[in-house]
Amino acid sequence: MTLATRPCFHESPLLTDLYQLTMAYGYWKTGTAHKEAVFHLFFRKAPFKSGYTIAAGLADAITWLRNLRFGPQELSYLATLVGNDGKPLFEAAFLKYLRAFRFTGDVDAVPEGTVVFPNEPLLRIKGPIIEGQLAETALLNFINFQTLIATKAARICEAAQGEPVLEFGLRRAQGVDGALAASRSAYIGGCAATSNVLAGQVFGIPVKGTHAHSWVMSFDDEAEAFQAYAEAMPNNSVFLVDTYDTLEGVRRAVAAGRWLRDNGHEMVGIRLDSGDLAYLSIEARKILDEAGFPDAVIVASNDLDEHIIASLKQQGAKIGLWGVGTKLVTAYDQPALGGVYKLAATRVPGGEWEFKVKLSEQSIKISNPGILQARRFTKGGEFIGDMIFNEEAMPLNTRMIVDPADVTRRKVMPADAVADDLLVPVFRGGELVYAAPTLEDIRARAREQLDRLYGGTKRLLNPHEYPVGLEPGLFDLKTQLVFKNRKVA
Amino acid sequence: MTLATRPCFHESPLLTDLYQLTMAYGYWKTGTAHKEAVFHLFFRKAPFKSGYTIAAGLADAITWLRNLRFGPQELSYLATLVGNDGKPLFEAAFLKYLRAFRFTGDVDAVPEGTVVFPNEPLLRIKGPIIEGQLAETALLNFINFQTLIATKAARICEAAQGEPVLEFGLRRAQGVDGALAASRSAYIGGCAATSNVLAGQVFGIPVKGTHAHSWVMSFDDEAEAFQAYAEAMPNNSVFLVDTYDTLEGVRRAVAAGRWLRDNGHEMVGIRLDSGDLAYLSIEARKILDEAGFPDAVIVASNDLDEHIIASLKQQGAKIGLWGVGTKLVTAYDQPALGGVYKLAATRVPGGEWEFKVKLSEQSIKISNPGILQARRFTKGGEFIGDMIFNEEAMPLNTRMIVDPADVTRRKVMPADAVADDLLVPVFRGGELVYAAPTLEDIRARAREQLDRLYGGTKRLLNPHEYPVGLEPGLFDLKTQLVFKNRKVA
Repeated sequence: MTLATRPCFHESPLLTDLYQLTMAYGYWKTGTAHKEAVFHLFFRKAPFKSGYTIAAGLADAITWLRNLRFGPQELSYLATLVGNDGKPLFEAAFLKYLRAFRFTGDVDAVPEGTVVFPNEPLLRIKGPIIEGQLAETALLNFINFQTLIATKAARICEAAQGEPVLEFGLRRAQGVDGALAASRSAYIGGCAATSNVLAGQVFGIPVKGTHAHSWVMSFDDEAEAFQAYAEAMPNNSVFLVDTYDTLEGVRRAVAAGRWLRDNGHEMVGIRLDSGDLAYLSIEARKILDEAGFPDAVIVASNDLDEHIIASLKQQGAKIGLWGVGTKLVTAYDQPALGGVYKLAATRVPGGEWEFKVKLSEQSIKISNPGILQARRFTKGGEFIGDMIFNEEAMPLNTRMIVDPADVTRRKVMPADAVADDLLVPVFRGGELVYAAPTLEDIRARAREQLDRLYGGTKRLLNPHEYPVGLEPGLFDLKTQLVFKNRKVA
Repeated sequence: MTLATRPCFHESPLLTDLYQLTMAYGYWKTGTAHKEAVFHLFFRKAPFKSGYTIAAGLADAITWLRNLRFGPQELSYLATLVGNDGKPLFEAAFLKYLRAFRFTGDVDAVPEGTVVFPNEPLLRIKGPIIEGQLAETALLNFINFQTLIATKAARICEAAQGEPVLEFGLRRAQGVDGALAASRSAYIGGCAATSNVLAGQVFGIPVKGTHAHSWVMSFDDEAEAFQAYAEAMPNNSVFLVDTYDTLEGVRRAVAAGRWLRDNGHEMVGIRLDSGDLAYLSIEARKILDEAGFPDAVIVASNDLDEHIIASLKQQGAKIGLWGVGTKLVTAYDQPALGGVYKLAATRVPGGEWEFKVKLSEQSIKISNPGILQARRFTKGGEFIGDMIFNEEAMPLNTRMIVDPADVTRRKVMPADAVADDLLVPVFRGGELVYAAPTLEDIRARAREQLDRLYGGTKRLLNPHEYPVGLEPGLFDLKTQLVFKNRKVA
């Protein structure tokens, strides 16, 4: 990357919880560091009670794994850490080991922009247990947040019914990278542009924006402010009309629009940022239409989200472009995706896999054992169901899925359904084997995936439940392991 | 900074909304760029219905303003932006102007760690309007998020009643910097340590952690896993006991603890991460005490926040260290602080100030005019009320404050109260004049400020309302300006 502003933090091997390093030390110390292990990254519940989720964050995960190196500064820092007796946490030989540490494992992952569902592996990592352990926290950070925002954006764009949505959450985002990663994820989810200029520079996302209340307030009156803006930037004039009196503001925007037209330009539109957006947009539309500006767009903002947009649409609001900030970039109604990363199998190199489950009082928290893959069945272009299966024990042509929460709920995929596996190879033996798509391709993929989902799955409230189940052999393996660990059988 | 991992993004001048640049262009184009202006950054409502808020984020704001330079890469990027006619948004002469652009204004700000309240200026910027405009978005991003998390952390630490709180939200945080900035802010708010190793390296925050479920699952059984961990890292042994059966796990931790003791070490404690934390901690405490480990701490985690901690305390839970992740670092119940940045005065250089208000249908959204400062009155060591006043028109020894929402509610500060102004000089003429405190000092300040607040103000629910009002002359100025803008008088 040649930018002056590089994502430096993303590249640090210390972007991790300390316990990953203490466990890594433990594996090294007990001679088990090179035991082979399989970890899966997945989530248990879709965010926002959504019927679907859009995967994102893989690009950062790839960058981090490729750059995973402990340099002198990181090792010096780790050497300063002490335990409860004041002595070093890590012995010098371990730090020396870390100096030569490289990621050598296999990674399979779901491409960004893919529609995914609870319990499906978004990323699978296979290799020395110490490598999978050291990667956990960073991978979760990237994928949890970016998947969350891509999904939120898709829901908001769905509510806007194809009208463009502008993301402008930088000022309220959680940190600088919280904003940048959100801009990228929002674009994947379907937003048309961002206000964040840095996101424009770093990711090539279209940037948009015109003026704020402070512009209007800095002039003696609103008419003067609009006229000055029209003169300064005739090819980018959206007038913010609600600084003093909104409909008066629309009339002043019309005056500036006439001046623009007389000078060979066309005003882009007006923006409403407060008040009753349904009423004001309908009234503003009348004023603009009657004045001969039927193509001037009405932009609306003010704490919008998918629910408010859907409601405004129902009320007949005449809004043509939606500005969404805080509620999108922070995923306000559910600001974290509860993605987890679980050990599912271990073996001595070259030996037999030993499958693992983590128990829990809550059935939903019991993990799936195996070397997992997800298979998607498509019929007539529409996605009809996904099967989670263990690659190590996959019977030929299995087409039945079992609901992990209810063994009696089963579904058989039709014989003429097309099957595709969601996880694709990303790293093999530590080498990148994945041709990463462009951001535009990722965005197009999300759009295309959403088009293949049954409409009811995309409802904002109480969506249709898309069928996802375990391959019956995997269901049996899981049940046996739970019995074994609970010492019931 | 000598770290390999520098906060590069924080330093970009493009960390802004596009409309700040289009307005900057407009000021430049209309010849008003050097008009003097005063902007204030403030919030209108405390987050989480809290009785107080802890200011944070100034350090990043200072770094950004000091480094505000448009380099060749930023200018090349800006040159690519076009308007609705496909022609450039910015003319070349403006980009040339930006190349020489430097921050030359005055900044006054509330030191990090200070207790603050709605409508008080957290930061005031005075100087050429173009500079204040270009700084808006970045300043809001830094201060909104970091203030939010420092406040959340203070509330959580308050609920823990002085017992240490460990922040470990990295995996669920909003982006890399969302996590890093959160770790720093959580430490300011009172957290004792973080799991985030990068935050340890970058900010010098103590880091803590031991092992996860995956460590236990990677061994054939729990006893073997605990023993291996004890052997590998005898000076840092907190055993996670809930992978299979929690109270059985506690007994196995005791066995590993005995081995440690026999070998000259002491186990630090155990961790509970699921289930009924009140019941399990009480039972675990009995087992540990009876086995001769009264000093082994019980660490608890699992989606904790201030309300759950307060409830666990009430139930007599025997927890000595609180691990808080997702709900702290994302401020889950209110993931954004609605801080705003408003123009309050302009003048031609050397002329008279012209004060400004922004109107709104909602009274709470009408901004305060003036060159604002906040004065805090203290009596007997306790904070008793704050006055917001206009520095340009401050009558001597005014001690009365008026509730901006109710002109009949007034309070006179006692004559023997000590008065201190909250905003302190940070930049003068673009030069840094502020000796930034260390992170430890900032954290100590937050603690000391909280100690000076009346206890009821710190209640989690329905807190006592701390008195904050306008100086009567400012109240009158605001009222007159609203009338004038509404054309009522």
